[in-house]
Amino acid sequence: MAKLIKNGTIVTSSDQYQGDILIEDGIITGIGLHLSQEGAEIVDATGKYVFPGGIDPHTHLDMPFGGTVTADDFETGTMAAAFGGTTTVIDFCLTNKGKPLSQSVQTWHQKAKGKAVIDYSFHLMIAEINDEVLAELPSMIHDEGITSLKVFMAYKNVFQADDGTLYRTLLEAKKHGALVMVHAENGDVIEYLIKEALEAGQTDPIYHALTRPSLIEGEATGRAAKLTDLANSQLYVVHVTCEEAVQQITEARNRGVDIWGETCPQYLMLDQSYLEKPDFEGAKYVWSPPLRPKFHQDVLWNALKTGQLQTVGSDQCSFNFNGQKDLGLGDFSKIPNGGPCIEDRFSILFSEGVGKGRITLNQFVDIVSTRSAKLFGLFPKKGSIAVGGDADIVIFDPNAKRTISAETHHMNVDYNPFEGIEITGEPVTVLSRGEFVIRDKQFVGEAGNGQFIKRGTYVSFSSEVNVGKKETVQGGAPHV
Amino acid sequence: MAKLIKNGTIVTSSDQYQGDILIEDGIITGIGLHLSQEGAEIVDATGKYVFPGGIDPHTHLDMPFGGTVTADDFETGTMAAAFGGTTTVIDFCLTNKGKPLSQSVQTWHQKAKGKAVIDYSFHLMIAEINDEVLAELPSMIHDEGITSLKVFMAYKNVFQADDGTLYRTLLEAKKHGALVMVHAENGDVIEYLIKEALEAGQTDPIYHALTRPSLIEGEATGRAAKLTDLANSQLYVVHVTCEEAVQQITEARNRGVDIWGETCPQYLMLDQSYLEKPDFEGAKYVWSPPLRPKFHQDVLWNALKTGQLQTVGSDQCSFNFNGQKDLGLGDFSKIPNGGPCIEDRFSILFSEGVGKGRITLNQFVDIVSTRSAKLFGLFPKKGSIAVGGDADIVIFDPNAKRTISAETHHMNVDYNPFEGIEITGEPVTVLSRGEFVIRDKQFVGEAGNGQFIKRGTYVSFSSEVNVGKKETVQGGAPHV
Amino acid sequence: MAKLIKNGTIVTSSDQYQGDILIEDGIITGIGLHLSQEGAEIVDATGKYVFPGGIDPHTHLDMPFGGTVTADDFETGTMAAAFGGTTTVIDFCLTNKGKPLSQSVQTWHQKAKGKAVIDYSFHLMIAEINDEVLAELPSMIHDEGITSLKVFMAYKNVFQADDGTLYRTLLEAKKHGALVMVHAENGDVIEYLIKEALEAGQTDPIYHALTRPSLIEGEATGRAAKLTDLANSQLYVVHVTCEEAVQQITEARNRGVDIWGETCPQYLMLDQSYLEKPDFEGAKYVWSPPLRPKFHQDVLWNALKTGQLQTVGSDQCSFNFNGQKDLGLGDFSKIPNGGPCIEDRFSILFSEGVGKGRITLNQFVDIVSTRSAKLFGLFPKKGSIAVGGDADIVIFDPNAKRTISAETHHMNVDYNPFEGIEITGEPVTVLSRGEFVIRDKQFVGEAGNGQFIKRGTYVSFSSEVNVGKKETVQGGAPHV
Amino acid sequence: MAKLIKNGTIVTSSDQYQGDILIEDGIITGIGLHLSQEGAEIVDATGKYVFPGGIDPHTHLDMPFGGTVTADDFETGTMAAAFGGTTTVIDFCLTNKGKPLSQSVQTWHQKAKGKAVIDYSFHLMIAEINDEVLAELPSMIHDEGITSLKVFMAYKNVFQADDGTLYRTLLEAKKHGALVMVHAENGDVIEYLIKEALEAGQTDPIYHALTRPSLIEGEATGRAAKLTDLANSQLYVVHVTCEEAVQQITEARNRGVDIWGETCPQYLMLDQSYLEKPDFEGAKYVWSPPLRPKFHQDVLWNALKTGQLQTVGSDQCSFNFNGQKDLGLGDFSKIPNGGPCIEDRFSILFSEGVGKGRITLNQFVDIVSTRSAKLFGLFPKKGSIAVGGDADIVIFDPNAKRTISAETHHMNVDYNPFEGIEITGEPVTVLSRGEFVIRDKQFVGEAGNGQFIKRGTYVSFSSEVNVGKKETVQGGAPHV
Repeated sequence: MAKLIKNGTIVTSSDQYQGDILIEDGIITGIGLHLSQEGAEIVDATGKYVFPGGIDPHTHLDMPFGGTVTADDFETGTMAAAFGGTTTVIDFCLTNKGKPLSQSVQTWHQKAKGKAVIDYSFHLMIAEINDEVLAELPSMIHDEGITSLKVFMAYKNVFQADDGTLYRTLLEAKKHGALVMVHAENGDVIEYLIKEALEAGQTDPIYHALTRPSLIEGEATGRAAKLTDLANSQLYVVHVTCEEAVQQITEARNRGVDIWGETCPQYLMLDQSYLEKPDFEGAKYVWSPPLRPKFHQDVLWNALKTGQLQTVGSDQCSFNFNGQKDLGLGDFSKIPNGGPCIEDRFSILFSEGVGKGRITLNQFVDIVSTRSAKLFGLFPKKGSIAVGGDADIVIFDPNAKRTISAETHHMNVDYNPFEGIEITGEPVTVLSRGEFVIRDKQFVGEAGNGQFIKRGTYVSFSSEVNVGKKETVQGGAPHV
Repeated sequence: MAKLIKNGTIVTSSDQYQGDILIEDGIITGIGLHLSQEGAEIVDATGKYVFPGGIDPHTHLDMPFGGTVTADDFETGTMAAAFGGTTTVIDFCLTNKGKPLSQSVQTWHQKAKGKAVIDYSFHLMIAEINDEVLAELPSMIHDEGITSLKVFMAYKNVFQADDGTLYRTLLEAKKHGALVMVHAENGDVIEYLIKEALEAGQTDPIYHALTRPSLIEGEATGRAAKLTDLANSQLYVVHVTCEEAVQQITEARNRGVDIWGETCPQYLMLDQSYLEKPDFEGAKYVWSPPLRPKFHQDVLWNALKTGQLQTVGSDQCSFNFNGQKDLGLGDFSKIPNGGPCIEDRFSILFSEGVGKGRITLNQFVDIVSTRSAKLFGLFPKKGSIAVGGDADIVIFDPNAKRTISAETHHMNVDYNPFEGIEITGEPVTVLSRGEFVIRDKQFVGEAGNGQFIKRGTYVSFSSEVNVGKKETVQGGAPHV
Repeated sequence: MAKLIKNGTIVTSSDQYQGDILIEDGIITGIGLHLSQEGAEIVDATGKYVFPGGIDPHTHLDMPFGGTVTADDFETGTMAAAFGGTTTVIDFCLTNKGKPLSQSVQTWHQKAKGKAVIDYSFHLMIAEINDEVLAELPSMIHDEGITSLKVFMAYKNVFQADDGTLYRTLLEAKKHGALVMVHAENGDVIEYLIKEALEAGQTDPIYHALTRPSLIEGEATGRAAKLTDLANSQLYVVHVTCEEAVQQITEARNRGVDIWGETCPQYLMLDQSYLEKPDFEGAKYVWSPPLRPKFHQDVLWNALKTGQLQTVGSDQCSFNFNGQKDLGLGDFSKIPNGGPCIEDRFSILFSEGVGKGRITLNQFVDIVSTRSAKLFGLFPKKGSIAVGGDADIVIFDPNAKRTISAETHHMNVDYNPFEGIEITGEPVTVLSRGEFVIRDKQFVGEAGNGQFIKRGTYVSFSSEVNVGKKETVQGGAPHV
Repeated sequence: MAKLIKNGTIVTSSDQYQGDILIEDGIITGIGLHLSQEGAEIVDATGKYVFPGGIDPHTHLDMPFGGTVTADDFETGTMAAAFGGTTTVIDFCLTNKGKPLSQSVQTWHQKAKGKAVIDYSFHLMIAEINDEVLAELPSMIHDEGITSLKVFMAYKNVFQADDGTLYRTLLEAKKHGALVMVHAENGDVIEYLIKEALEAGQTDPIYHALTRPSLIEGEATGRAAKLTDLANSQLYVVHVTCEEAVQQITEARNRGVDIWGETCPQYLMLDQSYLEKPDFEGAKYVWSPPLRPKFHQDVLWNALKTGQLQTVGSDQCSFNFNGQKDLGLGDFSKIPNGGPCIEDRFSILFSEGVGKGRITLNQFVDIVSTRSAKLFGLFPKKGSIAVGGDADIVIFDPNAKRTISAETHHMNVDYNPFEGIEITGEPVTVLSRGEFVIRDKQFVGEAGNGQFIKRGTYVSFSSEVNVGKKETVQGGAPHV
């Protein structure tokens, strides 16, 4: 059945206007001033913003880490995402040295299948480059539609790859049209700082932050940018937290390097002092890279405003405070890294960004949805409100007020790092490919309705004039 | 009569999709996959791009300069603009010290009225700040809808204002919601360099370039940026030509200063060596600031790509080679400054920018139209293809090839600085508020059909959440 | 009679060693491990540092300003300087538009003659460039030995020169071998800020600081640096106070511009909050540029350490609190600018610089003496301890402690801005050309013993290999 | 017997004056205008410069590399050094993982003993940090007087240490007063680039340069600077070759990091095109890092001029073209890295630096001698001409002209990379601790006369006021 969203204020990364949206077969087929369609179900959006569904470019659902596994899986995680206004997530598929990439991807498909309530896709971790990996990569990118490759510069002896591996991944990505993502911290130095701290009896959560200084996030970011430059390739720096890293990205962009940066709500809102909370509560705030001294927040907001950073991901990676985070009692290095944010990413960015005048409404849409669609090969299927695109839509009440709390959130975890923060603006109704997932703030979706999306290859600034044929997402070449 | 543009590839600064556009009463009322409307005139756009009409933020039509007047007036100038795909121009209203601002504005209205074939608006030059100017400014901005103020840092003893005047203009602009524009060159130093050159018998056109070094364009740009920072105001730097100026703008943006930069096709395509052409032909290439050594072109393209510069204006200011440019025979300082570009700006940016992979298709639309609409208070009436907006539309054949030439151009001037350059892509049909101005490459418009547009005030990053009421252009607050 | 300084630790800008110094006819004629000379007067320096006499490159003695005249003249000023370890001062000779330069120089000679107790020289202010000035300049530089030219970018309608004048001064200086000095603040903007403040009833001393923001000291500094670059000339920025200015100097030096920077003890030790002292006491701390927020102090110290700034001048310009500073009661803009520092410059730099590990002992000597000698054409006659040079020597007790106070200082002014500050290290005995001026902390000199020094021209990095003839100071070409 | 050097122009890093020098027992005991001493041998220096002996901070004598050993050992190498005006060399003692440091030092002592004709000292390579190394280090530094530690960031699987090792070395150096030295190139990436080149059949010498791009010398330099900052330690970057590295050093210095940089004559004089010489002659020009495109030379000279780089080392590491360099025929990666420069370093820097106006005479002395003495704990025993210091002295004819050639040089190697270059200025007579080594351009020294110098610890900017006791070099704390 067709649907007609009436009288909303439609907002894209470029436009803002009042209009009606017609949805047929999960696709937006018309936008007009006063549309009518016989038989269409009317959805009233008067006084509401109508946004493209959020795209969360950075989640870890059902992920094993340090002997435990994240509290949220693809069912609880995507349900919470939908409540928050997000209609697509891209999750990180971890791989293991010596094992086929395809095996890891298969494992990840099994985690998601039948569970996800919204659409999803995968990034692929690269731990090593060898003949087997080189042989498998083209198929991963072109057949599986996994067009982004993640390299860790930290977590020594676990995930960390050396510079040669990063460099070769950049070369392969360039060749096959993938975007390389890095976790940028100097793992060698961190390993020593942690060892030194523990030997000195410094075991509390705050030492997690103090053993991962911003200086070496900046160092690793600059290093990755320079290798990208050398490889003439493309890079996306995940979870940027600090001034030092922003400077490196800015400088590289100004030199013409094809580099992009993501930050997360936690780095925009919380600071290092949270790790000093008593009774081990600091463990709730253990992310890597860590929360930073407060002045970095202004740097990050300004970077979003001026376009030096382009996206905000949740880095969703939830562990219960009781039973998981407490693995690190007496040894901060054993605290599972990460926190729950998949649900609140969208609204926090609206409330703190648009509501406080730090970014414009168009920028909000770009940051929370469109830019990720373009960078990760989902556009124009996802990421905008335009005819021909998927009807992934959020009807948003900009005046609603609510207080974030673990008692009311929908994630499967026993705390919320933003507990008690009041925000303005809330998704009311959320559609995924034209179907209601959230309706009037109630979940009406179904596990398994989410589809895996094969993504298009990365298109840099090498756009070609190829008008007259509709560009397809899978294998196509969307213009960024 | 309604019109229906069918089967084009619609491109905005954010989106790209195939669809049909319905136009009623000069407004876009619907966009859909397969629209039909009884009685509507069908305009076929198969295989074509459908762009929002170009907005030229920088023209000088019917302008007196150095004892002569530009070759193009509002009729020939806007007609040529329309041929080139531009549907709105913002012209500079010059003022005179000691005379009321309103008198100058009145003069400018008289120049345009009954002549313009497309819509137009005015920027207002500020030569001095005194009690009379302070008294008139609010009315100019809010009643006349002239929401941008131009200050010259060069042309000593003619247009040049001192730093105190620039600073106070920035303060007033902030208070009343206007955007300050600067011509950034150090006029004091240039005056001496010219005097010195002429005394040394250096009278050829090339000395125009050599007496206006890029170093002091950079100096003046940085100075203006710092005064903007101090005033907590907003600035738009016109015709940026060089690396030194780009660096100053970039650095200021990175510090959070609300500063924007424009360049022009001539600086992207031509270089200083053109001023050395024999037989005084160098005079054709006399702009201020001057053409620069070739390496600056890459800096400018990269700045457009990375968003350090945001717009491309024509700086249309045409003088005939015979009879006008030759006023400077034997004294380069008497060559009228400027050249004709209003017609080719749009296509050159497409051909050299998109066609050569330097910018994406979305960036092209933003640079040639949308960004100017947003910065100068024309949005969302102008600058996009979205329901509710004016049907200012360009149907563009991306594969057409043509050679730029004075013999075929529509400007009223006897040379074209881009003579002989081959470009790909050409406007076929152009509509202004739903009426054909150019149809199948023929002019079908009418002098006087163009309307003066009162523009909205400048809205910086202080966007507010004010959903639910349609924003109007005049006096409204569009979100950038 | 010859003198023999025995057993001191001799320190130059490069060396540090124990040795004896033989002085004959006012000249250092020998340095050795165990010197003896029949008939020589022995001066014991055991346990003391033996430094070259301080050179203060920036003083205003007997200077008219704002309807009054500085409290210290060449007699009291140079006597205080000697007590403090300074054996040469370079004072600013003010000029008047429309009057011959030679007349101003004559006036300044009259002020100094018969009064100075140590050697002195003059800088020459340039207020305008015209045919008369152009005609006089070569003689000023080569005959009068006044090889440094001062241009003010601030004090609108009083001292301020426009950019054209600054640029032309740079050209002339290059041609004739002079060093240009600038007071770098944007006078146009300051004039308006002062006017605005006074109109708003903001009349207290603190508004002196608030109407001269560091942003526009940085702006003017960068502007002067760029004009220097353009003129391929040489520049010395007086009294640098802030991060913004240091950055501009650093950036220019890194580009190879021949630019130098001076700061003053007040900017290293005091901060903007001093201007808020009650009972109009803030007026004691009114310098231009003003004292800055405290964090700038670290920037300045680091700049001295890393060589981005090279000298520390006193900017001695004393006005009594009672009877002079109070001219500005009710109108901060009428407070005479400046303060007394000629006496404490040397010891403060030692105590706070060397004593606190911010600079090395060699750097101290360079900053307080040698570098000024080299930049201003006094070297090798002044500025070091080496055979053949003038015996301007300070015997310094590094362990003496004293508290700075107006009650004990020797300047002719009723307050000391450093009142109450405890410092370590004090000159014990001071010789000027081999004669005692201070002996065991007592003044034993005589007014009129100081000689005017004609200085050598500025030698940049264009050193030539001209060994084998002793270089003379006057007209010679010392290697920097 | 005492010696008296008469009538020379004595030049130190600060001073320049005519005078006589008295030498007794190998020590400078007096400097004066007209010295006489009964029985002293007179050395006439009329028309000559008298410089402190050069200190070469970077040599590899008798060093095994890639299956061969350098052509020059401590006898031929130091003899050539003396001919060139160098009186002290600091050689790199290589170590092996798993072997005691003391064993390597012992080996190096055996290489030098009985052979060196001038004084020498050792730097110590650190390949790993473990309990044994930690235990040995204090003794190496304080007992052996080896106060500088070298870490390689390149030569993967040979010398290369990881970032954790570099960081820990920086911490230990800080604790014990040593200066860390780095070879800064990204070895991981280079290893892959070499492998890729060889697989592509790119085996000629030029590929040595192309597989070691300047971008990753800059990267590694910045990384080392940031680790130094984090460790609050001190760093000396050896053989800086390029703009990217200079920028990183400059930026770090401006932030207050205690970092120093050295370049070499080959990077100042030769460029990448030399590696393209036919008949495998490019192999003569294989250094690591490699020669760079020509524009980097200006950057390096400017960095010396402005003090961003502070020393020039030879990186002496000679291999015969016939029989050694040709090990790399058909595989550039097997060409022994390095070249002969120990003899010409001093004169090239004088001729090209002072002679061409790029640096001043004082800077020359600082760069070629004094700064190394201060940084490496040899000062004030070495590095200046001052009473109490070693009489290491060069009498230098600034007007002598000669052409560099393997036919006339004194190094034991069959080519000279500077072959055919004409230079002005030549050492005539060289004394080491008061004894002639070179007299009137003839070698008059003796193998074994050179002594090993235990050096003082590194003193940063933490100078203390400790006058009154002569500072000793060994274990003392010279002020930099």
